[in-house]
Amino acid sequence: MTASAGVVAQLREALGERVDTSPEALNEARADKSGHAAPEAPLAVVRAASVADVQQTLRIATATATPVVTRGAGTGLAGAANTGGGEIALSVRGMDRIVEVRADDLIAVVEPGIINADLNAALAPHGLWWAPDPASRAISTVGGNIATGAGGLLCAKYGVVRDAVLGLDVVLADGRLVRLGHRTVKGVAGYDLTSLMIGSEGTLGVVVGATLKLRRLVPGAVCTLAATFADVRAAAAASAAVTASGVQPAVMELMDAASLAAVHALLALPAPAEGAAQLTIQTDGPAAAAEADAIAAVLSGAGGEVAVTHDAAEGERLLAIRRSMHPAMEALGTTLIEDVAVPRSALPAMFDEIARIEREYGIVIPTVAHAGDGNLHPNFVFAPSTGSGTAADSGASAGSGTATDSGTATDLVPEHIWAAADDLFRAALRLGGTLTGEHGVGVLKRRWLRDELGDDQWQLQRAIKQVFDPVGILNPGKVFDA
Amino acid sequence: MTASAGVVAQLREALGERVDTSPEALNEARADKSGHAAPEAPLAVVRAASVADVQQTLRIATATATPVVTRGAGTGLAGAANTGGGEIALSVRGMDRIVEVRADDLIAVVEPGIINADLNAALAPHGLWWAPDPASRAISTVGGNIATGAGGLLCAKYGVVRDAVLGLDVVLADGRLVRLGHRTVKGVAGYDLTSLMIGSEGTLGVVVGATLKLRRLVPGAVCTLAATFADVRAAAAASAAVTASGVQPAVMELMDAASLAAVHALLALPAPAEGAAQLTIQTDGPAAAAEADAIAAVLSGAGGEVAVTHDAAEGERLLAIRRSMHPAMEALGTTLIEDVAVPRSALPAMFDEIARIEREYGIVIPTVAHAGDGNLHPNFVFAPSTGSGTAADSGASAGSGTATDSGTATDLVPEHIWAAADDLFRAALRLGGTLTGEHGVGVLKRRWLRDELGDDQWQLQRAIKQVFDPVGILNPGKVFDA
Repeated sequence: MTASAGVVAQLREALGERVDTSPEALNEARADKSGHAAPEAPLAVVRAASVADVQQTLRIATATATPVVTRGAGTGLAGAANTGGGEIALSVRGMDRIVEVRADDLIAVVEPGIINADLNAALAPHGLWWAPDPASRAISTVGGNIATGAGGLLCAKYGVVRDAVLGLDVVLADGRLVRLGHRTVKGVAGYDLTSLMIGSEGTLGVVVGATLKLRRLVPGAVCTLAATFADVRAAAAASAAVTASGVQPAVMELMDAASLAAVHALLALPAPAEGAAQLTIQTDGPAAAAEADAIAAVLSGAGGEVAVTHDAAEGERLLAIRRSMHPAMEALGTTLIEDVAVPRSALPAMFDEIARIEREYGIVIPTVAHAGDGNLHPNFVFAPSTGSGTAADSGASAGSGTATDSGTATDLVPEHIWAAADDLFRAALRLGGTLTGEHGVGVLKRRWLRDELGDDQWQLQRAIKQVFDPVGILNPGKVFDA
Repeated sequence: MTASAGVVAQLREALGERVDTSPEALNEARADKSGHAAPEAPLAVVRAASVADVQQTLRIATATATPVVTRGAGTGLAGAANTGGGEIALSVRGMDRIVEVRADDLIAVVEPGIINADLNAALAPHGLWWAPDPASRAISTVGGNIATGAGGLLCAKYGVVRDAVLGLDVVLADGRLVRLGHRTVKGVAGYDLTSLMIGSEGTLGVVVGATLKLRRLVPGAVCTLAATFADVRAAAAASAAVTASGVQPAVMELMDAASLAAVHALLALPAPAEGAAQLTIQTDGPAAAAEADAIAAVLSGAGGEVAVTHDAAEGERLLAIRRSMHPAMEALGTTLIEDVAVPRSALPAMFDEIARIEREYGIVIPTVAHAGDGNLHPNFVFAPSTGSGTAADSGASAGSGTATDSGTATDLVPEHIWAAADDLFRAALRLGGTLTGEHGVGVLKRRWLRDELGDDQWQLQRAIKQVFDPVGILNPGKVFDA
């Protein structure tokens, strides 16, 4: 029996039929939604049904020095959950219970596998919601949202995941369970390991429970504005003007001309004017209508052609154009979806940089932005190169085109695309930004992490990883490139 | 020359007149506002004027293995900044510049020594504010607020320090400078060391700069309600009812009978009715008046005698009663100010526990609470025991009575007071709470930290401390008791 077979045998003995080694399961675990996949399939998929299952898996992994990649719904966009050869894919997707909802304390305790939208559907009858709203909310898990420190559309007004988690139950690399954080609004006993765990992408432990900070549902109707501008820079400047005006929209999404055209084509809508870019904005709460009027004035003053609706269905229809971006890009080819964020005032300058990079590299970079918080998603669309690796395009969850990431630079992303992405990251950093606003580092951005953090901080972070994971079994090769 | 004299000589050579060894300075550095002081005076007070000064100090400290205690305004309530024999007090109080204010990006970059209220006075003309509002805001520094992870009066609606800091510049134990976090609304590149640093009480590094997340000033007038109840349990139940009703006050403060009587005596106001407790509540924003009416109805329904004012000056007068709590306690004698927090629904039960402890130990525990977020400040008032230690009551900044904490259990707090406090902490933990909502652990709560965190998490936190501080010079003996 090989060492690998021994690990699988131990898992089977401990966990029985919750160990899945079917070719379909193993292949699916290679990829997330980034379009990239591990070159080889993992040893096994463990479908944990309980905290004890997670603990058993990690005890075996530690004893055998076998890497473990924790997975939720596999909707990540940076390859963090891609599971490769010799690794165990630990799925917590089946741990999806809502353990407790306390309307009086505005908290819920949940298991990690619950889908964000399902949680919110269950909270609505209590008059409550959990604010983090990634574009993937209908298909992504709360545990995945926590692992990536997810953002979304509502962050400028309602915060990111870090603002909405009070405590976490975490299984450590050796199988011990620790309870981090608190159930109270305030709490400063010791270091904030809850925040440390949020966004750690499975490299520090496995989240098996979360105490979430809830909000009460916002009363009143939502108002939606759609404004068209002659070009993307004008739209970006208008969004910065809205932020500077002091009115706080709930949603402010920007689509550039290439994005708008791709989505219109996908949805079979009439083509937009050449070069036209669009802002889609929503206001909510008691002052929604007045805020919409104030924003409309700012947008008109900035040269926009503005439409306002107080009708919820019409508003959802307008926003659906933005929500169709990911499938529209998938329809165009294989994409490298980037995720830079800049201070909001730098949004026009960042679009100038994108235009420069498009010219210099002779490529088109369809870009959408959560303009309210300065987070841009430039999409590098390309035909996969064929010089290296094996396309894993049978991975059902990996979108229409799937590139293979072999853990080195010799992946299916063509070199000139990586060079353009490198230029983009450096531009974002120069403008006071970050290389990832909400998708995380995973495998796709790890080679730039050190540039952003600086050597000293990068070493500190690696030393913290070592404290939590002395044997090096927790999602090795992700986040850090060495 | 002794080793200590050698350290001081090195500091003087590097930092000249910024090294203060006057008896007054050394004595003041022994204490914070907790009423507790280190038994011996430190080697020197370094009054840093720049990042380079902080780096120089830490390089010398590391080279000579000399402990460093970072201090701001010395307003802490857990003894975390108390500096003792053989230690360097590193004051960053003089580093108080506002480096940058960006209204369009809603951020400010500041040095750590600026007073919270001074910062907010400077931000107001920009239409901005930094939300953290500890009761000490007029005298405490932003750096101190960050070091303790301070809370305050407005947290349920406007968040704690952790929600209001985007990035930190930190000098490490060996003098290297790292820049943590980001200037953007979103950012998930690597681990969240900014949050790890917040509330770490000087044990992981020295904060020399902070990028703060600002809010726009809330428009409109504030409404203030004062409601009197027959007893504290009724007031606590009423505050929980307000939270459960879904209306979100900006401020909701509770004072029990002993607190109310003490403050009325201090301010020479007519004595309140025997046993009466009070809630002071403020609403703000566009719906302030309607929310005040809704809250008044809840309070009346819960048995309160309610007064509402829309007059700002009258509102401040009502709130001044609550803000006079600390001097009122100082007037009564030496106090051990506690800081437990519980889920808001558990507030009445926590007051039952306090009543039980008062009975069982034959003491009175005047208690105020930030009722909107479940954070209680029970005050144990006592005459210092004389059996051990040396009273350091010449410490000008240490209040009217100053107890000496020698780093062991043999301090001036009488044994039966510690026993009662122990009982209180355990009650808070049983109710799902924490032993410190906003003051931190310092020296006064370190012997209970392990109970709250559990052994495994406590060991993890100590290992993280070791990563940042391998020589053990950063505020040793604070937070962790071994």
